[in-house]
Amino acid sequence: MYAVEVSDQVMIAHSFRGEVFGPAQDVHGATLVIRVAFFAEKLDMHGIVVDIAAAHEVLREILRPLNYRNLDELAEFKDVNTTTEFLAKHVFDGLAYVARGGRLGRDGRELHALRVTIAESPLARASYEAALW
Amino acid sequence: MYAVEVSDQVMIAHSFRGEVFGPAQDVHGATLVIRVAFFAEKLDMHGIVVDIAAAHEVLREILRPLNYRNLDELAEFKDVNTTTEFLAKHVFDGLAYVARGGRLGRDGRELHALRVTIAESPLARASYEAALW
Amino acid sequence: MYAVEVSDQVMIAHSFRGEVFGPAQDVHGATLVIRVAFFAEKLDMHGIVVDIAAAHEVLREILRPLNYRNLDELAEFKDVNTTTEFLAKHVFDGLAYVARGGRLGRDGRELHALRVTIAESPLARASYEAALW
Amino acid sequence: MYAVEVSDQVMIAHSFRGEVFGPAQDVHGATLVIRVAFFAEKLDMHGIVVDIAAAHEVLREILRPLNYRNLDELAEFKDVNTTTEFLAKHVFDGLAYVARGGRLGRDGRELHALRVTIAESPLARASYEAALW
Amino acid sequence: MYAVEVSDQVMIAHSFRGEVFGPAQDVHGATLVIRVAFFAEKLDMHGIVVDIAAAHEVLREILRPLNYRNLDELAEFKDVNTTTEFLAKHVFDGLAYVARGGRLGRDGRELHALRVTIAESPLARASYEAALW
Amino acid sequence: MYAVEVSDQVMIAHSFRGEVFGPAQDVHGATLVIRVAFFAEKLDMHGIVVDIAAAHEVLREILRPLNYRNLDELAEFKDVNTTTEFLAKHVFDGLAYVARGGRLGRDGRELHALRVTIAESPLARASYEAALW
Repeated sequence: MYAVEVSDQVMIAHSFRGEVFGPAQDVHGATLVIRVAFFAEKLDMHGIVVDIAAAHEVLREILRPLNYRNLDELAEFKDVNTTTEFLAKHVFDGLAYVARGGRLGRDGRELHALRVTIAESPLARASYEAALW
Repeated sequence: MYAVEVSDQVMIAHSFRGEVFGPAQDVHGATLVIRVAFFAEKLDMHGIVVDIAAAHEVLREILRPLNYRNLDELAEFKDVNTTTEFLAKHVFDGLAYVARGGRLGRDGRELHALRVTIAESPLARASYEAALW
Repeated sequence: MYAVEVSDQVMIAHSFRGEVFGPAQDVHGATLVIRVAFFAEKLDMHGIVVDIAAAHEVLREILRPLNYRNLDELAEFKDVNTTTEFLAKHVFDGLAYVARGGRLGRDGRELHALRVTIAESPLARASYEAALW
Repeated sequence: MYAVEVSDQVMIAHSFRGEVFGPAQDVHGATLVIRVAFFAEKLDMHGIVVDIAAAHEVLREILRPLNYRNLDELAEFKDVNTTTEFLAKHVFDGLAYVARGGRLGRDGRELHALRVTIAESPLARASYEAALW
Repeated sequence: MYAVEVSDQVMIAHSFRGEVFGPAQDVHGATLVIRVAFFAEKLDMHGIVVDIAAAHEVLREILRPLNYRNLDELAEFKDVNTTTEFLAKHVFDGLAYVARGGRLGRDGRELHALRVTIAESPLARASYEAALW
Repeated sequence: MYAVEVSDQVMIAHSFRGEVFGPAQDVHGATLVIRVAFFAEKLDMHGIVVDIAAAHEVLREILRPLNYRNLDELAEFKDVNTTTEFLAKHVFDGLAYVARGGRLGRDGRELHALRVTIAESPLARASYEAALW
């Protein structure tokens, strides 16, 4: 199985509800370093998994509404805790939609799976990985 | 599949038996950077895989008897080579026991697997990964 | 000249005033990785620049009021932009006060200078460095 | 499942054919940081997955013909794009041959799989992973 | 003294003349990760050393003619070895010209010095630092 | 001022005397990642600060007697605490001797200073820097 990973980052604020979060129940923030892996059984005719430039652009598109924002104020995240694991799935869903639609430079059927990893600090990170089909 | 990873470190001394280890048969040491990944199919009601603070604390508890020690002198490691791979399994076993017992902030049955990765230097690392059930 | 560096991190929210900040005028956040270097011409009788455990503790004390907070709401930061450079100086001031007072395990006169470096992401960081006397 | 990872690097030049590569159609270059993971279900009698020193040596042997070269000029890469994904598979093939032959300090049958990861920059990397048998 | 650092990267090919370079006399390449530090005694009225977005843009402008190129073919580098140290000075010169001209969001006189650091691999890097006035 | 940095690593055991060291009074160990910076005002005729291959070799020579050893057992370290700061000075002294002797590919007089940085973990490091003349 081949994989290609690209990376980008956003700076967000948010707060969590639930005593389990302790001091993170207050509004705080994070630099999120997002890494996306695209998996495929075979390389395409150019010798690549996906068009990296296209993948970068799509990732940036998905991250743009989050960057420099307080996620507590975004309608789409109303009533959810925007934990790092939750955001990994959020980015996965956006990318999966684009990948299945074949917008990454090859037939979406040829992409096997995606994994989104988000580091919230050098010491802690979360990920979501799933097959595309 | 979701995953959350937390990290900690210890500074240990040890020596190895067997010609395959070359100069590492002498007493030497290592800074071990340990990263533990917890895997779950679903997030809990708070939007998390496990309570990260609890996970950190449990990891620290398991590492405490190793930190600043010469592992050759610990009774539990008598007659074994405390290689990085071996120690990854050792940390896995401790965490698995706690995770199965539900001490990480959710029913242990909901945790799918664990992976323990130990970097002994920027250039070399080992890991152990297994399902919990 | 000798130096010893220790590191810690905080997760904060804040916003900036001034068009130069573009989208960062909205409430957003950052994981700040703080690294503090203590400089001395000579090692003490134990062969160290400062007591690292004491240095870590003092750094943590200075960072605690910032961690998991929206800096816009802290009285001490009223009417200032809490940029990474500004925060580097803020941490410097706290550490310099403690270091001059001799609370880092040796006579403060023997410490020459401090440097505080704050990475706000893998791609951007700021620092403040000055002599202590 | 256990894994052990070792790392090495090469500095290469190359160019790509195909409009999808944009400016990378010109001769350019990369520092490639290669990380190889060896997977096994059980440790051997010494408590290791493979002899790390032997693994390093074999990796270096496989990389030597690439280091400080323009890959466009190597006969074995004639008419292919030496993308990072392609090179991950190339290194995999060389290591798999050696591993199956039992030259890594244990019976090759006991090694389950290999994964080769190549970072071409801090922001982009590719990998190839497959079972050995 | 305050400093702010921003980072970017390029992928280049080149070759060196001189036996001291050994195998690097052949055409090879490198991923160069460039980090630029801007030094100032005081923050400006916004609490910053320079406008980071402007600094990033200027850095990108200076690097663009190098990215995805074989430096041996660029007229401006005719008859020189484009070593990492040489390139650090090259980037310094471009940035110093812009900084002195006041194009980084504050009067150039208020900037004290620049340092350009270029990592050619995780194991080797070069830098050039000098006062601006 | 130009600088070139090269890096290497060793795995050592040792123990410290003095209550200030707390649990580190027991025999423990560390992976030490050593980075050496060579400073010069001018590049030589090849466009370099020093011959990097020669610098690497000299660094390796100096580190060899420490690697895979318990430093408590080395005669030259009898009655001293081999702290990270102390070891930085030890490596500096060895390199300075070689550099002043002109064994790094250029007249030693042309080298201005050396800085040795030793990271004992991702969170803590020490350095020693001094002029050569």
